[in-house]
Amino acid sequence: MTDLPRPARPVLLGQNQYGKAETRVVRITRDGATHHIKDLNVSVALSGDMDEVHRSGSNAHVLPTDTAKNTVYAFAKEYGVESAEQFAVHLARHFVTSQEPIHRARVRVEEYAWERIGTSGTGPQAAGAAGTGHSFVRKGQETRLAQVTYDGASWEVVSGLTGLTVLNSTGSEFRGYARDRYTTLEETRDRVLATSVSGRWRFNWTDDAQEMPDWDESYEQTRKHLLQAFAETYSLSLQQTLYQMGARIIGHRGEIDEVRFSLPNKHHFLVDLEPFGLSNDTADAAVYVAADRPYGLIEATVLRDGCEPRIPVDLTDP
Amino acid sequence: MTDLPRPARPVLLGQNQYGKAETRVVRITRDGATHHIKDLNVSVALSGDMDEVHRSGSNAHVLPTDTAKNTVYAFAKEYGVESAEQFAVHLARHFVTSQEPIHRARVRVEEYAWERIGTSGTGPQAAGAAGTGHSFVRKGQETRLAQVTYDGASWEVVSGLTGLTVLNSTGSEFRGYARDRYTTLEETRDRVLATSVSGRWRFNWTDDAQEMPDWDESYEQTRKHLLQAFAETYSLSLQQTLYQMGARIIGHRGEIDEVRFSLPNKHHFLVDLEPFGLSNDTADAAVYVAADRPYGLIEATVLRDGCEPRIPVDLTDP
Amino acid sequence: MTDLPRPARPVLLGQNQYGKAETRVVRITRDGATHHIKDLNVSVALSGDMDEVHRSGSNAHVLPTDTAKNTVYAFAKEYGVESAEQFAVHLARHFVTSQEPIHRARVRVEEYAWERIGTSGTGPQAAGAAGTGHSFVRKGQETRLAQVTYDGASWEVVSGLTGLTVLNSTGSEFRGYARDRYTTLEETRDRVLATSVSGRWRFNWTDDAQEMPDWDESYEQTRKHLLQAFAETYSLSLQQTLYQMGARIIGHRGEIDEVRFSLPNKHHFLVDLEPFGLSNDTADAAVYVAADRPYGLIEATVLRDGCEPRIPVDLTDP
Amino acid sequence: MTDLPRPARPVLLGQNQYGKAETRVVRITRDGATHHIKDLNVSVALSGDMDEVHRSGSNAHVLPTDTAKNTVYAFAKEYGVESAEQFAVHLARHFVTSQEPIHRARVRVEEYAWERIGTSGTGPQAAGAAGTGHSFVRKGQETRLAQVTYDGASWEVVSGLTGLTVLNSTGSEFRGYARDRYTTLEETRDRVLATSVSGRWRFNWTDDAQEMPDWDESYEQTRKHLLQAFAETYSLSLQQTLYQMGARIIGHRGEIDEVRFSLPNKHHFLVDLEPFGLSNDTADAAVYVAADRPYGLIEATVLRDGCEPRIPVDLTDP
Repeated sequence: MTDLPRPARPVLLGQNQYGKAETRVVRITRDGATHHIKDLNVSVALSGDMDEVHRSGSNAHVLPTDTAKNTVYAFAKEYGVESAEQFAVHLARHFVTSQEPIHRARVRVEEYAWERIGTSGTGPQAAGAAGTGHSFVRKGQETRLAQVTYDGASWEVVSGLTGLTVLNSTGSEFRGYARDRYTTLEETRDRVLATSVSGRWRFNWTDDAQEMPDWDESYEQTRKHLLQAFAETYSLSLQQTLYQMGARIIGHRGEIDEVRFSLPNKHHFLVDLEPFGLSNDTADAAVYVAADRPYGLIEATVLRDGCEPRIPVDLTDP
Repeated sequence: MTDLPRPARPVLLGQNQYGKAETRVVRITRDGATHHIKDLNVSVALSGDMDEVHRSGSNAHVLPTDTAKNTVYAFAKEYGVESAEQFAVHLARHFVTSQEPIHRARVRVEEYAWERIGTSGTGPQAAGAAGTGHSFVRKGQETRLAQVTYDGASWEVVSGLTGLTVLNSTGSEFRGYARDRYTTLEETRDRVLATSVSGRWRFNWTDDAQEMPDWDESYEQTRKHLLQAFAETYSLSLQQTLYQMGARIIGHRGEIDEVRFSLPNKHHFLVDLEPFGLSNDTADAAVYVAADRPYGLIEATVLRDGCEPRIPVDLTDP
Repeated sequence: MTDLPRPARPVLLGQNQYGKAETRVVRITRDGATHHIKDLNVSVALSGDMDEVHRSGSNAHVLPTDTAKNTVYAFAKEYGVESAEQFAVHLARHFVTSQEPIHRARVRVEEYAWERIGTSGTGPQAAGAAGTGHSFVRKGQETRLAQVTYDGASWEVVSGLTGLTVLNSTGSEFRGYARDRYTTLEETRDRVLATSVSGRWRFNWTDDAQEMPDWDESYEQTRKHLLQAFAETYSLSLQQTLYQMGARIIGHRGEIDEVRFSLPNKHHFLVDLEPFGLSNDTADAAVYVAADRPYGLIEATVLRDGCEPRIPVDLTDP
Repeated sequence: MTDLPRPARPVLLGQNQYGKAETRVVRITRDGATHHIKDLNVSVALSGDMDEVHRSGSNAHVLPTDTAKNTVYAFAKEYGVESAEQFAVHLARHFVTSQEPIHRARVRVEEYAWERIGTSGTGPQAAGAAGTGHSFVRKGQETRLAQVTYDGASWEVVSGLTGLTVLNSTGSEFRGYARDRYTTLEETRDRVLATSVSGRWRFNWTDDAQEMPDWDESYEQTRKHLLQAFAETYSLSLQQTLYQMGARIIGHRGEIDEVRFSLPNKHHFLVDLEPFGLSNDTADAAVYVAADRPYGLIEATVLRDGCEPRIPVDLTDP
């Protein structure tokens, strides 16, 4: 079936997975005139007894990725979308328990949030002063993430977010650092600290016998804690801020054992306005360049004592 | 200076402009512990007596684009950023009035909105229950746009927005359309209508002798009207919705004479779940494919009676 | 049908168009074992007698955008894709001549180029030493563009390209420019000149009675001339280089009357290595920062004498 | 220094790294009139004894990311850029050996390829019929990748590429697959197989005592083998094609022990033209939809016998 000579020395097949990525599913439910929307991007990755398809091209163990797509749509109808995590649990369980050659399923979900459009309250569509029940505007802030992995015995749930851009206009220093012959940076006691948060957190729910967390409540609280830790930490370094964000989540959310952040330091440099006879200090009004590249990149895992890290070093989505 | 033979037939230089694009300037002002942020992306395009630089390479009439960048930063310090439009007016006036060969300046501004992070109210940084005064999260919804053009005598101000994604989950039909041999679409009396709004609106403020509009108030009201028109229009076609959005702005905002929208029809197709023994109608819970490409694209200008259209057919940013 | 009060003062409908954007069509033809591929992204915009659909929502004059999509696919089968321009001519003529309310059609095409993969020549699929006849790798350089507009009487064809990134590592100066109090830039007699070319050129073929140009030959020659003019012009300013690129096309290609370029000046700044005891001049090996933003942006139209400009100031795609 | 209460239960710091990402450096060398260009995007990630900066904000062990940026530029001058891998080796060794608290450095490089512009050979700049020696056009195809990790004792070098889009217009089947109640896909004996290759390969060079591979030669040969394996494999599944690409590299390149690919199945669906009275089979000319999302995603590692896998499951760049 192939025209290639078999290599003289044997070749091994390592970790492999396959599936349908980025199935865009929107589910709308009606509660009288009030509608609810769930807007997801679902990626399924399956692995198991897949040697033959790689070596001979036999697809006997391969459930088509097209079927994975169909299943996403059908399950959105049959089981609904209570939360991103719950939906992913349904899907992952289905693939592993219904197809013998599939031993492991990883389902990733990106969720886009919407909020209601307030209306003038005068039109016939207006359900009340607060707006129609069926008109939405996309929030546009962070993308919520959920990843569920199931091997037939235990669960791993990692939730997170990406694209949440935050900025402290003061309360940040950077000084006392190591120096070498290539160091030219000047110390600062008052800088802008800005980043676009990408975070993941792993739950200690691993077994069907445990009570499942309230995923939405957990997400809202975790997001709140990371935002507050960012805002309330007087920062001597972005590493310190990152650690506080992680520690605050571990400290407040008993359902979470591990947090990892990837925080680009979105540099805001004070512009040198001296050539134009202008001072530019932070005392009253300061003007900054918002730089694109390069950027500092600070990454770390924060763990509950006694727990093993499992979130990979490099965060990826979807 | 050039090795090219002059073409036998004469060649003319047509419309030309040059400048610095996408200068990213952030201005932070302090009102005690409460800070305020303006986050802009500024593009300057200058034109005038520029034949020589094109034909011989003489830069005698060319103020460097690097100077335009410097000017953006210096003006952010000297004059502040009251609004995107006001800032662009300062810049455009400066270039035209200070450099004799420059006869026309067009300044485009993209503005990114931020909102305050609410905090736990317990830390020493917390100015009150509402949050610190110096911590922000980027709103992430639409990008606000402003374009100011000045030729030394009169002004043209076009404001707008891009990337505002909206969706009606009902209240939209599409039927009674023309057909030909390539038509296979089925009619619908209940569809999802979604779009990512890109809009521009032109002000009738053109002269320094007129009172300048309150640009921020105008933006907020115009945005509100377009959202409400989207939400409150029972839609027989996206064209109808577009027209209502424009007409509502013209009807309510006397400072605006012309509106143009470019509305991609972000198709949400009902998934066919029959093969799986499931019905999928809109009565209770419906599952949709959110499609990427292709998409319908609906574009139109809506004008106040007696006014001439000036917004170009194709909307561009930045 | 709408819940909005008619505005007190009348509102006019200005320029409007609608259609299906970004239909991705790939056509593969077989010449024995040798295959040929055309890979297009087609956007159709129709206009005409469309007042009613905007005002009342009546779709009687509206051929669905879904039909435009179907037509693109059907025409790719029925008429083939001789060239991007020829394919767009077929489509534009069809819409205007077959639907009475449609008075004007604009068809835009993006074309992605592929080249053949050379093979080892030993496998059974290898048609010869040169490679299989059915394996391709996407070229990845510029995207070819074509825009055809038809109003039932005359044609306007504008071709072009975008994303062609070029760089001269010497042969470029920038000095003798105007100065003001915000000018800090230093003059240079040897800089890197780099840009990502976006260009459009308009043909003087407007009438079915004229012989149609050889669109592919014209594209290849025009692309060659602009590349050579970029490479061979000793540049005192990017404006001069732009003008030479345009003049060379007008001078050599009689079928083209107008050219417009939008050239971002992709700045490559010499890094200051003095703090590290290193000189960094261009004499032997020089190290540059390739900057992202801001960038100079140089735009101009070059015209054949006696011709009117028609290409819009702001180039857009798709 | 922080306003947060220490969490009641202790919190651990896990894997962490920091550095400057995406430093864009271009190096141009002159060999008489013939210039050479290297165009890189360099990301440095450092780790080691970094507990204090996370816990107390003390930066005593933190070499600023700004210094990492400076070092990239200085090294490009001092040591040149022989290849992406060699340059990364210089940098990684420097950080680990010169800063005691830094125990490990990972340097990632993206490299953009350029080719010379052929010229008309008539201008004074023309070095010969082949073109000027200083004019380049960016190739635009794949981005070359290199990642070098050093812990002071041994090296790990992983090279690769991303964005190489390939297509076979025949020689691909998909049938004989598993089915369940959600399977609707029809089998095919002749389909288009297209993907955008993202690949990584790990070298068995780990020790300074070993002779270093010729990195550029290795890259060119590896790229050639993967392209040829793609072109010459009669494919029963994309998994089979992936495996052949990997096996061919392992079989031919003794310096490489492990290969991992992530291959999106860029679906090209035959359009149903029956409603328009047209057949659309692959016999002569066939018309396809090039779909965006969702897409199949096939990922696997191929290993030399006896080797341990080290390339992470999810490929990331930069």
